[in-house]
Amino acid sequence: MRFYALFCCVAFYRSVNCYDFVTKYIEMPLDHFSFTSNATFKLRYLVNDTYFRQPSPVFFYTGNEGDISMFAQNTGFLFDSAPEFKALIVFAEHRYYGTSLPFGNLSYSSPSHLGYLSSQQALADYVYLINDLQKQYAIGDGQKLPVVAFGGSYGGMLSSWLRIKYPYAVIGAIASSAPIFQFKGITPCHTFYKIVTDVFRNLGSEKCEKTIRKSWTTIRNVAKDDNGRANVSSILRLCSIVKSVDDLNVLLDWMSEIYTNLAMVNYPYPADFLMPLPGNPIRVFCNTLDSVEYHDDLGLIKAIGTALEIYTNYTQQTKCNDIETTATADLGEKGWNFQSCTDMIMPICSTDEDMFENTPYNFTEYSEKCFKEYSVRPRNENVPILEYGGDDLETASNIVFSNGLLDPWSGGGVLKNISSKVTAVLMPDGAHHSDLRAKNHLDTEDVVNARNFHKKQIASWLGQYYWRYYGNNEYHLNYALKYKH
Amino acid sequence: MRFYALFCCVAFYRSVNCYDFVTKYIEMPLDHFSFTSNATFKLRYLVNDTYFRQPSPVFFYTGNEGDISMFAQNTGFLFDSAPEFKALIVFAEHRYYGTSLPFGNLSYSSPSHLGYLSSQQALADYVYLINDLQKQYAIGDGQKLPVVAFGGSYGGMLSSWLRIKYPYAVIGAIASSAPIFQFKGITPCHTFYKIVTDVFRNLGSEKCEKTIRKSWTTIRNVAKDDNGRANVSSILRLCSIVKSVDDLNVLLDWMSEIYTNLAMVNYPYPADFLMPLPGNPIRVFCNTLDSVEYHDDLGLIKAIGTALEIYTNYTQQTKCNDIETTATADLGEKGWNFQSCTDMIMPICSTDEDMFENTPYNFTEYSEKCFKEYSVRPRNENVPILEYGGDDLETASNIVFSNGLLDPWSGGGVLKNISSKVTAVLMPDGAHHSDLRAKNHLDTEDVVNARNFHKKQIASWLGQYYWRYYGNNEYHLNYALKYKH
Repeated sequence: MRFYALFCCVAFYRSVNCYDFVTKYIEMPLDHFSFTSNATFKLRYLVNDTYFRQPSPVFFYTGNEGDISMFAQNTGFLFDSAPEFKALIVFAEHRYYGTSLPFGNLSYSSPSHLGYLSSQQALADYVYLINDLQKQYAIGDGQKLPVVAFGGSYGGMLSSWLRIKYPYAVIGAIASSAPIFQFKGITPCHTFYKIVTDVFRNLGSEKCEKTIRKSWTTIRNVAKDDNGRANVSSILRLCSIVKSVDDLNVLLDWMSEIYTNLAMVNYPYPADFLMPLPGNPIRVFCNTLDSVEYHDDLGLIKAIGTALEIYTNYTQQTKCNDIETTATADLGEKGWNFQSCTDMIMPICSTDEDMFENTPYNFTEYSEKCFKEYSVRPRNENVPILEYGGDDLETASNIVFSNGLLDPWSGGGVLKNISSKVTAVLMPDGAHHSDLRAKNHLDTEDVVNARNFHKKQIASWLGQYYWRYYGNNEYHLNYALKYKH
Repeated sequence: MRFYALFCCVAFYRSVNCYDFVTKYIEMPLDHFSFTSNATFKLRYLVNDTYFRQPSPVFFYTGNEGDISMFAQNTGFLFDSAPEFKALIVFAEHRYYGTSLPFGNLSYSSPSHLGYLSSQQALADYVYLINDLQKQYAIGDGQKLPVVAFGGSYGGMLSSWLRIKYPYAVIGAIASSAPIFQFKGITPCHTFYKIVTDVFRNLGSEKCEKTIRKSWTTIRNVAKDDNGRANVSSILRLCSIVKSVDDLNVLLDWMSEIYTNLAMVNYPYPADFLMPLPGNPIRVFCNTLDSVEYHDDLGLIKAIGTALEIYTNYTQQTKCNDIETTATADLGEKGWNFQSCTDMIMPICSTDEDMFENTPYNFTEYSEKCFKEYSVRPRNENVPILEYGGDDLETASNIVFSNGLLDPWSGGGVLKNISSKVTAVLMPDGAHHSDLRAKNHLDTEDVVNARNFHKKQIASWLGQYYWRYYGNNEYHLNYALKYKH
């Protein structure tokens, strides 16, 4: 069955790229590490073999927290570079997202169903899938195809960890915007929102940043009573009226998240990743905000509301704003929140240094919130460091960590070379995994350079691999000569 | 509470070594990789801090399939070398063995209880325990203590995998008699029994090997009817009479296992590891067998029975032979059998090349047997290779694999240097992890050399570690100068 991801092509504002895949499924053990049950489930993956010629590499995207077709449509770099490497392209869906639901509609119903959602289980899924691909696309000489892992954001964390934990499964990893240092004791919790603030000040304006900074008190003041809350709800075109302080907190969280998302996806061209947006959306947002004149509190809220429409209503088709969500439903927010309460515990806080309301990070409160929401608690804050090593990458090899510095997640990224084998690429004008997106004539030079760096690294890994198994033959020479550093 | 392992000192035939420990427990998550339950259990570990001076290393034994105190009493190398390294000695018990039973008496009652027994869960236990030890024995400058992993047999596999999977937790591993190549497609299945046979022929005699080779048919012939089976049972002093072909198969398996065990523990001095035994037990066994004259089938069986008493009744206190077990009850045979059906699937077979009855390896039959016994099946034969990489150790570092070539498990061991960082040590006269045992004046030279090699490697890893964190200070210099290669 051929799967056409048409949705990305239908509207003018969306990316012009639309990639074609075959959708496949693999039967996967539910639990790779215990033997209490022998249940299995169907994991989805997408394959494009247009450019593939054996014994060329497999470009393997380690899917993250969402429908895999969304990531496939937003990771054009793999398609742009596959022809010169004659690569097979595979996008693997992360368990519990998209259609890879182990218990169908019940998958999110309780910890006994949802508990098999973890990064470790997902990594093992990818190892099993790669093993299966090796059989499906066998060269015939018994030699394995070299597999290169790719991933952005949480997917980037997974691609680097796949190389670290299962180095025999992949010859290297391109980990873009992968905040593997966003864990306890490695990155200060206030870094994240500080970056968002700097980006609004530097790419928007000082005035824009100050208006946002002021808005929290203004909104809380106006929303002190029912009348004020109704006013705020109406000005911001909310789908349901804010009725309590709890509702108000949800609204303010929603606004914070929109500012954060704008920094993440501040690409120089129109794109549709979290939401359909114009190019340079922060500049557009701040230009709008700065241009609206106001004389009182309601005026300020109105100005913010107008600017927010850049994010919430760029298509002019949003009837009202649902403050329960800030991004496409393709992104599995609920699953990610569960993971944040189990194995992906990332301390983040706001202080006076940023434009957001102060929000201290308190692990005990965090744990309580998790228990209330999902009936689970983080075992302890160190789980991800115990499992993946935190910032001790001494023995790691063949990983490129790239980061766009406009991206708040870059604060928890690997920003310095660790060794000759684990390197960092910085894109000062880049946003969240800009380098993994399809090439665009508006790309900044740093993003273009990052992509070239990736290709050279991949070629070098391939050269080593072919040398190891075939000696000085055409495959080895091809890569060794073509991509000399 | 102080735990005195007195049992090892009471009888004349036992090792003269008796080590002293404090017994401790750590609360451990039952499942490190899923979040369906937040259950925990008490994992036992033994600590000896007699020689420990900060910031010296931790010698961490990754416990295998049995009561940890048995391994502690049979791993004297750690005690013999701890004084010069001023090391803290820790022996960690493997979950589901000894007293580390997650569900108490119910632990082995069903897959839903027993299913959390896996090598991956055990490795994570060790990482959590090491993390806890880092807090308990903190230096004060925030710097971690360097931890060196040690293990013999399955424990050796675990120590090498601990370094491979969690390289930030241990600076290196001494993996003795660790058959990490005893998996599908890496080592031919007939290697194991071929080695046992060679050892009986070379250290015993050709006659001895031939008698054993002949005995299977002889016993089957005699045991064709009730009368014959009763005769065999009586001659071999069995606790219960062999009544069926099934019983007979159990008897022959028991005999095979004794020959195998004799090869494993063929130490040059009396020892008490699997069973109390004299020095060079295969020579003693074969001398006995060869010296008994016989003229018919019953005579041959009687000769075998007499020789077997070397193994089964060296203490002269065994009233009868229980064919359900071949080793001390401290060894968790049932747990190991479960692991052999889940994550430690090691193909082993007998052919005409060895002295045992032909036993082909058939994965389907194996899987059926597992299901019958434990209500589980191996997911597939490749599980251990997918999880640990098989013989692809390209990115591994700081591991010594040592093997005694008398040991049948050496066939699945790492017998060649993989790189400058992953080295092999061969002991042509050594048995199963001879090098990890306490020094003895009867040690062969290769075993003594292996221990010296380990110490140099450990010193070199420590030198690198201290250099990395402290620069050119006394700790670094101490190890860099003292153990120059």
